[in-house]
Amino acid sequence: MSITKKQRTVLFLPDNITVKVDEGDNLLSAAAGAGVYIDAFCGGDGVCGKCKVKIAGGEVYADRATLKQEDWESGIRLACQSTVRTDLTVSVPEKTTASGQALKRKPKTTRTISARSLESLIGTWDVDPPVTKLYLELPEPTLEDNISDMQRVMRGFRQARPDDPEPNYDHPELIRELPAVLRESHWKITLLLLHGKGDDEPDRIIDIEAGDTTARLYGLALDIGTTTCSGVLVDLNTGRIIAEASGYNAQIRYGEDVISRIIYAGRPGGLRALQEKVVSTINTIIDDICKSVIISPADISYIMAAGNTVMSHLLLGLDPKYIREAPYVPSVSQFPLTKAAGLGIHAHPSVRLFLYPCIASYVGGDIVSGVHACQMAKSPEISLFIDIGTNGEIVVGNEEWMVCAACSAGPAFEGGGIQYGMRASAGAIENFHIHPETYDPMIVTIGRIKPSGICGSGLISIVSELLESGVIDQQGKFNRSLDHPRIREGRNGWEYVLAWSQDSLIGEDIVITEVDLDNLMRAKGAMYAGYQTLLNSVGLGFEDLDRIIMAGNFGAFIDLERAICIGLLPDVDRDKFYYLGNASMLGCQISISDVKRFRERVQVRQLITNMELSENPEFMTYYMASLFLPHTDMSLFPSVAEKLPGA
Amino acid sequence: MSITKKQRTVLFLPDNITVKVDEGDNLLSAAAGAGVYIDAFCGGDGVCGKCKVKIAGGEVYADRATLKQEDWESGIRLACQSTVRTDLTVSVPEKTTASGQALKRKPKTTRTISARSLESLIGTWDVDPPVTKLYLELPEPTLEDNISDMQRVMRGFRQARPDDPEPNYDHPELIRELPAVLRESHWKITLLLLHGKGDDEPDRIIDIEAGDTTARLYGLALDIGTTTCSGVLVDLNTGRIIAEASGYNAQIRYGEDVISRIIYAGRPGGLRALQEKVVSTINTIIDDICKSVIISPADISYIMAAGNTVMSHLLLGLDPKYIREAPYVPSVSQFPLTKAAGLGIHAHPSVRLFLYPCIASYVGGDIVSGVHACQMAKSPEISLFIDIGTNGEIVVGNEEWMVCAACSAGPAFEGGGIQYGMRASAGAIENFHIHPETYDPMIVTIGRIKPSGICGSGLISIVSELLESGVIDQQGKFNRSLDHPRIREGRNGWEYVLAWSQDSLIGEDIVITEVDLDNLMRAKGAMYAGYQTLLNSVGLGFEDLDRIIMAGNFGAFIDLERAICIGLLPDVDRDKFYYLGNASMLGCQISISDVKRFRERVQVRQLITNMELSENPEFMTYYMASLFLPHTDMSLFPSVAEKLPGA
Repeated sequence: MSITKKQRTVLFLPDNITVKVDEGDNLLSAAAGAGVYIDAFCGGDGVCGKCKVKIAGGEVYADRATLKQEDWESGIRLACQSTVRTDLTVSVPEKTTASGQALKRKPKTTRTISARSLESLIGTWDVDPPVTKLYLELPEPTLEDNISDMQRVMRGFRQARPDDPEPNYDHPELIRELPAVLRESHWKITLLLLHGKGDDEPDRIIDIEAGDTTARLYGLALDIGTTTCSGVLVDLNTGRIIAEASGYNAQIRYGEDVISRIIYAGRPGGLRALQEKVVSTINTIIDDICKSVIISPADISYIMAAGNTVMSHLLLGLDPKYIREAPYVPSVSQFPLTKAAGLGIHAHPSVRLFLYPCIASYVGGDIVSGVHACQMAKSPEISLFIDIGTNGEIVVGNEEWMVCAACSAGPAFEGGGIQYGMRASAGAIENFHIHPETYDPMIVTIGRIKPSGICGSGLISIVSELLESGVIDQQGKFNRSLDHPRIREGRNGWEYVLAWSQDSLIGEDIVITEVDLDNLMRAKGAMYAGYQTLLNSVGLGFEDLDRIIMAGNFGAFIDLERAICIGLLPDVDRDKFYYLGNASMLGCQISISDVKRFRERVQVRQLITNMELSENPEFMTYYMASLFLPHTDMSLFPSVAEKLPGA
Repeated sequence: MSITKKQRTVLFLPDNITVKVDEGDNLLSAAAGAGVYIDAFCGGDGVCGKCKVKIAGGEVYADRATLKQEDWESGIRLACQSTVRTDLTVSVPEKTTASGQALKRKPKTTRTISARSLESLIGTWDVDPPVTKLYLELPEPTLEDNISDMQRVMRGFRQARPDDPEPNYDHPELIRELPAVLRESHWKITLLLLHGKGDDEPDRIIDIEAGDTTARLYGLALDIGTTTCSGVLVDLNTGRIIAEASGYNAQIRYGEDVISRIIYAGRPGGLRALQEKVVSTINTIIDDICKSVIISPADISYIMAAGNTVMSHLLLGLDPKYIREAPYVPSVSQFPLTKAAGLGIHAHPSVRLFLYPCIASYVGGDIVSGVHACQMAKSPEISLFIDIGTNGEIVVGNEEWMVCAACSAGPAFEGGGIQYGMRASAGAIENFHIHPETYDPMIVTIGRIKPSGICGSGLISIVSELLESGVIDQQGKFNRSLDHPRIREGRNGWEYVLAWSQDSLIGEDIVITEVDLDNLMRAKGAMYAGYQTLLNSVGLGFEDLDRIIMAGNFGAFIDLERAICIGLLPDVDRDKFYYLGNASMLGCQISISDVKRFRERVQVRQLITNMELSENPEFMTYYMASLFLPHTDMSLFPSVAEKLPGA
């Protein structure tokens, strides 16, 4: 198996900018991603009717919305109401740009990862899951052959697989129900078997089902995030994803981030409440998935989950107390065999929940799963693996060695510490352009509705655009000399108005302030200082990196050039960058599908050495130097230096 | 380790009968066992004052009871009030025998198994238990060394045992408590480890305790009988038994035997009730044991249990339904790994309960444990292993092959189907002699109180004495020509009065009837036919047997000569007979103490092939021929033929 999405090429005229996008992508988003400015104040809601483009070649799916009939018939479409269907040539009419002409700026070469490159990272995997089914037709017992029911099953197994060792079984319920299952099915049964740790180790019988159920074999991949939990149901006979569901981690009511969860866990009953909440979140995901494909939760044969160290502890009901206190020690990093039902998860009583092992208190199983998915540990090439969130996690290494670290980036990229910051949900500004002459914004929101706030990718877009257009300087201060209504001194100091109250969903002006910029600089500075400290610890520099792999949903949405522009990512050859998307989920999904990959996961974890940055003086030095846009040492950012007039 | 009891020799004069007994045995019982008749109507209560003997050499512990001072001072003792302290010479005064002289009969060579012989059967075993403790002093974590708590423990293990594989752990509670245990103990802990199945397999961490607890290591051996459950606590540092307790299986209220339990299990809630009852019985045993040595149930590191197939099923909550219906199939014979606490047993949550595997529906783990204890499977000698109870179980074989069978002996030996039958508890007549001239009885009861009924060993004594004295004939019918007040026609046909109402605890005459004799013959006939069928199936006869091993508490109390006399045991060389006592418990005790023996138990079970007798025509033929005292074919019982005048 491998993951592929159909790619389409869109040529925007008259700028002559070509961009590769996925089929089904929104055209306004595609333009924004390509750096093509189109008038759009409403976030993509279809109401302002300004983002008119002409489809000069190829086809889109489009909604007429407020378009006149004659415009529609002449091939005019609202970009925000159109999705890419084929390769396209799109002409942006002169009148749709504020100045009547294409932007003067050099086209941005936003890299959209091609399927082929992604495949080269994660490789292919077999549909040879760690669980299998074996159908057996057993002879009925007689007085001459009255061995126990379980011995009869074992004998059937030996006859079917004479070369394999006899499987184990340890679930009392299995044996409790066995006599009835055997007799009701007229001695025709299906064994659900979990492979042993190695090829020589015996399988384990997870379930014995009446009749031939070999056609039904499902595994669940679970990504247990601090904010969001997601599940993917894989048909293990085909390796295909047949259902997905996700939802906020219900622990959120007890705190947004891992630290507040740890604190809550220390309150009486807190740990139990947190454990119950994440289990109820998982149960909702399982129930949603099962409803959508009409199976029972008991039909899920196997669960592979990954989460950060705190989430993993809370799921298992382990007190995360010492994770927060120096020297930051988790209870366990290699999680014990756990039965899902024992945790309260809706699952067959003998189904196991495997959790990716963690490395340290702030480098968790989600990172190990991601590193596992992209096969860093199998390549001689040196990779920098980055997962940007509240805690940025970084892994550097190759097949021979790996080091990792966590840096407290702060919650800016998840909307924290930003006045109008919000999570990446509907209404969040996710892409932004500024007109270099009018300083007017082009806003694209998630869900293409009126804006209600700024998410992480939007924040990066906004800051880099403000910086490139000279609205702010490299210290993150507004250019006080610009006389523009959107640039003003507000309640919290200087700010830029992204959306006037009448254009916003929340009925007030949405702004970005100097305080916000300061918080962003601290967050990106921590990440960059992390890269430097980790690389330096192994005697390497950015020039030694063969690949920079970005994991996390966040990574999939940020604009590479802009992230480099603000100093969040190193200024190296763009061809070295890869987006993995939800790498944690991807690792679980691969492990579920292929027993060989499943067995690798522990070795991957053991290859990685953790480094504590929290009281590391070198890290602090690097950090101070990076509190600038993009950095105090501009020699580290040559491509940005070229673009910034004053740098 | 081995089992030894101090043996003493008692010479009875003037009969000149020598008997070996255990130090501490009761002198009246010793006389009865040796076939020395002493007047004793009261069962040994000390009230009738008739059983006077003179201690001519050696010492006894004695109670004066009703003895006159001058008698006491001249060395007269009441046999029933005396226990053996040293080797003894005991003179039975002429006047204490009814006719004024010693019995004319040839002395009975009751074999009391010597410790040495028993040792040759069960061998010695090492104090090298399947669980061990390992004390570790770990370094405190620092920022440079902040691996997880569990990794720290594992590293400590590797340093202490560099050649052993890293242990497993699967108990969530263990990890949940680990951070507190480590910190409260200042990083000084003791691991409780369970050995893997083989020498190469990793150990399993059962518990992690604060401080150095290596001096405390206990294992519990449990014999789960249909009637009685017993527990033995072994100090695994020394191999010594430090506490014992037993009690009736509380399931008894739902039926006396396994069949009635199976029926009850089929009623709504029945299975659950039975499971709860046996667990509560076990818990009472554990609590009693723990109180007596002042430890907590959580200090027991390891439980090894054995029970028959039905008891094993009920303990695990498995429906025994199909055990009762042809073709008699148990759910499982090799029981899965079970955590004791999961069944409701008072135990540390991660402590395992090991159950001896069963062979068939009516040949259970108690038999496997017994066969294991006596090392039949390690000897080239051919042994016949017998456990006599409601279901008699028989195993024949040696190190190369073994066959087993169960025969429905009926409950006569446990007091069932016998008018005054009772279990072997206080007041039960356990030994009996009849005066060859006066036909008066000598009665010894359990607890040496007034008689209230007849237990299995008493029944065998009574029937063989009545047969040898000519009170009954070989068909089990009373000699109608004897004119004696104790021999009479009662409500249920002819009977013999064992105790008059004034001498009995229950205030009524205690008798044995022809119906009782008939039931006894069926019971012993089934056993004997079982031996014959099983031996014949492998082409052997009684003459091929090297050893006859009797297990069960019952076996320890029956008089060998008498059992042969009635045809319950084959008439072969007496030196071939061994009493193992509670062999089921012994197997558990050995398994608990020595990991090598522990690992053998599964192979022992696999060596044994079951044979169904229930619809076997050959068995029926043998059975019909054995409904006689001792047998219709007297050539099978040459020594009995000599003793019986009319045979």
